[in-house]
Amino acid sequence: MFRSLVLLASLALLATPSLAQAPEVLPDLDGDPVVLVVHGGAGTISRAEITDATERAVRGAMEQALRAGHAEIVAGRPALDAVAAAIQILEDDVEFNAGRGAVFAADGTVRHDASVMDGASGLAGASTGTMHVRHPILLARRVMEASPHVLLSAEGAEEFALEQGLELVPNEFFHTERRQQSLLRVQERERSATGLAAPDPEPWQMMGTVGAVALSAEGHLAAGTSTGGMTNKRWGRIGDSPIIGAGTYADDATCGVSATGHGEFFIRLGIARDVAARMAYLGESVDEAATHVVGETLTEAGGTGGIIALDAGGNVSMPFNTEGMYRGYVTRSGRVVTMIYGDE
Amino acid sequence: MFRSLVLLASLALLATPSLAQAPEVLPDLDGDPVVLVVHGGAGTISRAEITDATERAVRGAMEQALRAGHAEIVAGRPALDAVAAAIQILEDDVEFNAGRGAVFAADGTVRHDASVMDGASGLAGASTGTMHVRHPILLARRVMEASPHVLLSAEGAEEFALEQGLELVPNEFFHTERRQQSLLRVQERERSATGLAAPDPEPWQMMGTVGAVALSAEGHLAAGTSTGGMTNKRWGRIGDSPIIGAGTYADDATCGVSATGHGEFFIRLGIARDVAARMAYLGESVDEAATHVVGETLTEAGGTGGIIALDAGGNVSMPFNTEGMYRGYVTRSGRVVTMIYGDE
Repeated sequence: MFRSLVLLASLALLATPSLAQAPEVLPDLDGDPVVLVVHGGAGTISRAEITDATERAVRGAMEQALRAGHAEIVAGRPALDAVAAAIQILEDDVEFNAGRGAVFAADGTVRHDASVMDGASGLAGASTGTMHVRHPILLARRVMEASPHVLLSAEGAEEFALEQGLELVPNEFFHTERRQQSLLRVQERERSATGLAAPDPEPWQMMGTVGAVALSAEGHLAAGTSTGGMTNKRWGRIGDSPIIGAGTYADDATCGVSATGHGEFFIRLGIARDVAARMAYLGESVDEAATHVVGETLTEAGGTGGIIALDAGGNVSMPFNTEGMYRGYVTRSGRVVTMIYGDE
Repeated sequence: MFRSLVLLASLALLATPSLAQAPEVLPDLDGDPVVLVVHGGAGTISRAEITDATERAVRGAMEQALRAGHAEIVAGRPALDAVAAAIQILEDDVEFNAGRGAVFAADGTVRHDASVMDGASGLAGASTGTMHVRHPILLARRVMEASPHVLLSAEGAEEFALEQGLELVPNEFFHTERRQQSLLRVQERERSATGLAAPDPEPWQMMGTVGAVALSAEGHLAAGTSTGGMTNKRWGRIGDSPIIGAGTYADDATCGVSATGHGEFFIRLGIARDVAARMAYLGESVDEAATHVVGETLTEAGGTGGIIALDAGGNVSMPFNTEGMYRGYVTRSGRVVTMIYGDE
């Protein structure tokens, strides 16, 4: 029923991905296609470091997100409805670096990025640097549907959110003790580093971005990604999550993709779009393309992270080159599978 | 010596490109490869609408930019030096929508976006929404060279610019009478439009972005793009110019690209990166790939604009689907060619 793929990681020139091999498990479709796949971030995730309580919370949230999105699909609603329903639940859960549980920027604020893309129309929407929008994924969707633009930023994006009647909350709504401690930890490391104004971020600083890709009953794809970005981010740094083609992409003719990881690599390499390009131009399957892009392109460049990808036939791929990735999928019949570690 | 390409524009569903055919003229290399190509924006540019003085000013500025970049190349310096030298000159010239001559946002400020990418290392840098950096292209380059990030934004990007010792000026430095009149014109149209909070922008609102692609004596490529974005932009709108893979891309193995046009289409379609992907995966030449991406992919989606593309062999392509595009190139021997109209 299952087959294993081994991602062969090459010697990295610029950085050292934390694991050279990441086994991947793919579902046997058996006439029961995957209709929704989610991720909650990739990184140094091992059984030794995760408590039973955290594991239960993460798996529980992903299952809830998958069931919420599945309900949209079986009701015949657009793929973007399923993406938004799933991501909203993850944004509300403090286990993930998105929405409520997002990480702190260097100045002690929490700032969100999000994006969506619709595979049928090729339309997309995204926002970056908002501080008060409760569900950034809904803002990204409104940018797509109610503005002539793709990407809105900061105060301007919040002005648009207010005009659209979205829920705004004080920035303190997003302040969690755990993320505050992470910020202090990074800033302590920064102070003790000598001669470097800004040390390269550690992979865990970018852990926890959430994303979803859905396939509607009519056969259309949509993808979305939401994040708080990087712990201790400075200078208004924008990562890959709000960048169409880097962190998010969807095209019915190829696939939908959502990414998580060291965003700078995902932008330079255009990771999400590259999966679709390999399918369109090389005739690769979604799994061949996704596996190549993460296992070779990303890994050879020295980047760490993972992606979820789904094609219009309900074939899913979830490769990553880190120790683990929070991920899961639901099939049309409602079978839910969640995974955390590399050997699942 | 010259050959003509005709871009066959298809019926556009979402918008109507202003011209169905845009002839393109390519140089015969004859052992004298192109080492630098620049653009100054694509749009409704016809002889009837351009005064002799404007034509002289635009051609003169492009020639000056090409000669400045050429000097860097023949001195054996990196391709990025040539890109920066050329774009700085265009940023200082009020004829172009970049730097000093940039257009106004809806709130009466001028805000810049810029990006660079180095084809040898795959590294990239970009900034968006700065209001005081005199040469945004230099900021984009510093982001690439002196930060661990790819994209910085707004006040944070300016903090970084100050730390890097870049020249900052008051926003008024960028205020020109001509661009102020353009803003008033768009806002008048907006007020007279009924029932639409934000009418779709007209193509001319996004005219004038500048860009350059260079080929060093060592055979390395680099690309850069700089813009003021869209006249009357609201909600912190970010276009394609600072987005790696959309407005700018460079990879020694394929090509360097800089784009200009209706940015939302360039982001969704990942235009710059798509030229490289077609070369890498389909084996197309730089001209085949660039021509397809502009003449078919962009045009069929309803987008307007153009790109410049250069490969490591010094082969150049400059397709556009608008009436004209400010563009020019210089060969290794120093032969300079500038073009404005579609029939040149």
